[in-house]
Amino acid sequence: MTRLVMKFGGTSVAGPERIRAAARLVAAEAEKGAQVAVVVSAMAGETDRLLALASGFGGGLGDSETDAALAAGEQVSAALMALALGELGLKARSFLGWQAGVRTDGPPGASRIAGLDAAPVLAAMRAGEIPVLAGYQGVDAAGRVRTLGRGGTDLSAVALAAALDAQCDIYTDVDGVYTTDPRIEPRARRIDAISYDEMLELAAQGAKVLQTRSAEMAKARGVKLRVLSSFAEPGKAEGTMVTDAGLIAERRIVSGVAYARDQARISALGASDRPQAAAALFGALADAEVGVDMIVQTRARDAGTANIEFTVDRKDLPKALKAAEGAKAAAGAREIGHETGLAKVSIVGLGLNRRADVARILFEALGEKAIEVKVIATSEIKISALIDNDAVERAVRALHAAYGLDGE
Amino acid sequence: MTRLVMKFGGTSVAGPERIRAAARLVAAEAEKGAQVAVVVSAMAGETDRLLALASGFGGGLGDSETDAALAAGEQVSAALMALALGELGLKARSFLGWQAGVRTDGPPGASRIAGLDAAPVLAAMRAGEIPVLAGYQGVDAAGRVRTLGRGGTDLSAVALAAALDAQCDIYTDVDGVYTTDPRIEPRARRIDAISYDEMLELAAQGAKVLQTRSAEMAKARGVKLRVLSSFAEPGKAEGTMVTDAGLIAERRIVSGVAYARDQARISALGASDRPQAAAALFGALADAEVGVDMIVQTRARDAGTANIEFTVDRKDLPKALKAAEGAKAAAGAREIGHETGLAKVSIVGLGLNRRADVARILFEALGEKAIEVKVIATSEIKISALIDNDAVERAVRALHAAYGLDGE
Repeated sequence: MTRLVMKFGGTSVAGPERIRAAARLVAAEAEKGAQVAVVVSAMAGETDRLLALASGFGGGLGDSETDAALAAGEQVSAALMALALGELGLKARSFLGWQAGVRTDGPPGASRIAGLDAAPVLAAMRAGEIPVLAGYQGVDAAGRVRTLGRGGTDLSAVALAAALDAQCDIYTDVDGVYTTDPRIEPRARRIDAISYDEMLELAAQGAKVLQTRSAEMAKARGVKLRVLSSFAEPGKAEGTMVTDAGLIAERRIVSGVAYARDQARISALGASDRPQAAAALFGALADAEVGVDMIVQTRARDAGTANIEFTVDRKDLPKALKAAEGAKAAAGAREIGHETGLAKVSIVGLGLNRRADVARILFEALGEKAIEVKVIATSEIKISALIDNDAVERAVRALHAAYGLDGE
Repeated sequence: MTRLVMKFGGTSVAGPERIRAAARLVAAEAEKGAQVAVVVSAMAGETDRLLALASGFGGGLGDSETDAALAAGEQVSAALMALALGELGLKARSFLGWQAGVRTDGPPGASRIAGLDAAPVLAAMRAGEIPVLAGYQGVDAAGRVRTLGRGGTDLSAVALAAALDAQCDIYTDVDGVYTTDPRIEPRARRIDAISYDEMLELAAQGAKVLQTRSAEMAKARGVKLRVLSSFAEPGKAEGTMVTDAGLIAERRIVSGVAYARDQARISALGASDRPQAAAALFGALADAEVGVDMIVQTRARDAGTANIEFTVDRKDLPKALKAAEGAKAAAGAREIGHETGLAKVSIVGLGLNRRADVARILFEALGEKAIEVKVIATSEIKISALIDNDAVERAVRALHAAYGLDGE
């Protein structure tokens, strides 16, 4: 019998009507013959409400007692979902993190799942019950309640699916992963199937459907993911399957176009071209916990010197500049410069590395629209271009068309 | 070092300001040198809110998943109280029912505490932390979350106090147990100390400060209880101590006057005077789960027959009448009659059984006010009189004066 984990996020359990709709989706899968387990987030807004209460007493994310308060949100929605399934004539029971043996390590508010004891959940399933796991929570080695950070319920769902050897359906408010953001390009199409690596790149490059942490865990544990809409009719949702590249029939060159606004570029001009210089610079940035993207090193005018350029999120610019200034002497740099008002557009696809002309297509497509490419960075399955912030929409549409992604 | 369990009910943790005030009370006791543990209810209104959510899915008290949802209420207030204590510079940590080893048996929504493993709480106290236990909840033998019914947090507090060999302070919105309801008799006085048995009788006769279940458990486990106000200045509350009769210095005849409105009287007229008749009648009432009070059997006119009369709560009258009619033939009764619009006034005191004139005083005091005594029932430490509903206030004031309870 196929096993299926169905995960419902905050908007999918936002209130009694949404919970009832989600329960009908579960019932439809159970009727089709799947052995189903459910994982739920807190009702939309509830985590923020509880966090505000805790903040009123000096608590906040990263605080042990805040975790205990926040975990109550998923506790309530798990119980309500179990009741809603009961109303449909299904046997169901809620599992809190500690009841499902979800063990965590790491700090409060941002723990990771260290293990999950599938035995209690499996026992319920074998007894014909649908287990409903409260997501986002677990218990650390000292027996304290811990939460998993933003997107934590996806992690709970993937961990449960891995433990049960089940497929993991992530129900959300969109009906799948799109070739690009449909708000920018109406001709964007839903992707039927995509590889873990492409999904990871799309998420890292700005697509918000699935978080990188859960896609990473799914890849590492070999869990087949499906992203689909909880607003669809029961049994009618198609969504996007995220799986091994080898399991995907259609061989596309490019799967999607992602974008991230509000990037900043930092330049260390006239730095030493010895590796120690770059090591000093990026070491300082790592110590300041700044995520660095799109690194380019170019030979500078003076012999033995180089210009090191990289991008960061605009919000990280102040601490990035401070770290870079601090490492200026060690890197032997003449000057630290920066530029804001930038954005990144990326194309992602397993076929990119097989085609020599992908970069040419990108330059041509952006050039035709008079969009300047300030920096370009490539990986096996991704090409990113740094452009002006106000050119994002035009660039996304141009690339979507140029790589043949436009639907009819 | 003295150990103290401090319990705060819903109105005492109704919102951030009340939680902060309660935390200051805890800090004051800790400063005085007590080793303190705290037990909290859900914030006022929260249990009703969660119950309404569960009811929307056909859940209700007595349902397993409703218990899981309801327990979230105490979970949040325990976490917030721990944070509030932290703000005052105290080390504190929350304990959910399962973390404190609160084991239950009995049905969902009305479980009883089968045991409490003090070790985790004691370990925290020894480490200089103030444990904050989420009241009203525990875990059954199957590992399911269970709640203890109305007044359940008092039970959690008494059980914790028993396990810790501590005094149990019940903070509420009144400043102690009164000689009678101050809303009826402004001359009512706070009682400094009262015996478990008197407290039990007062609670059973209608006083609402403390529930009978927690007073019973305190008596059985030898836990010294104190009822006091969470609205008092830190360290200033006096309250009422509930303890062994032998520990009470002042020897009063009567401790208090209680009342219960909306009683009904049922009469089985001309029943057989053989014990089997009464057994058939009261057996039927017990099967219908009707609580029967004030039973009087009098010889009837015809030889070998008796009139059996008893009182029930007005709300139980329909099912009581149905049960009595069903047992009419077995009891050999000629007729089942009933009367509504009745109330019960009771005087409670350890000294009642030592004084021959207590009943005379009652009849005289009520007679002077032209209040008819329809039925009278006595126990070792209580005398109850059934009167008209609309005479309650006059009767309470008359008895309060007649037994010398009026303050200056």
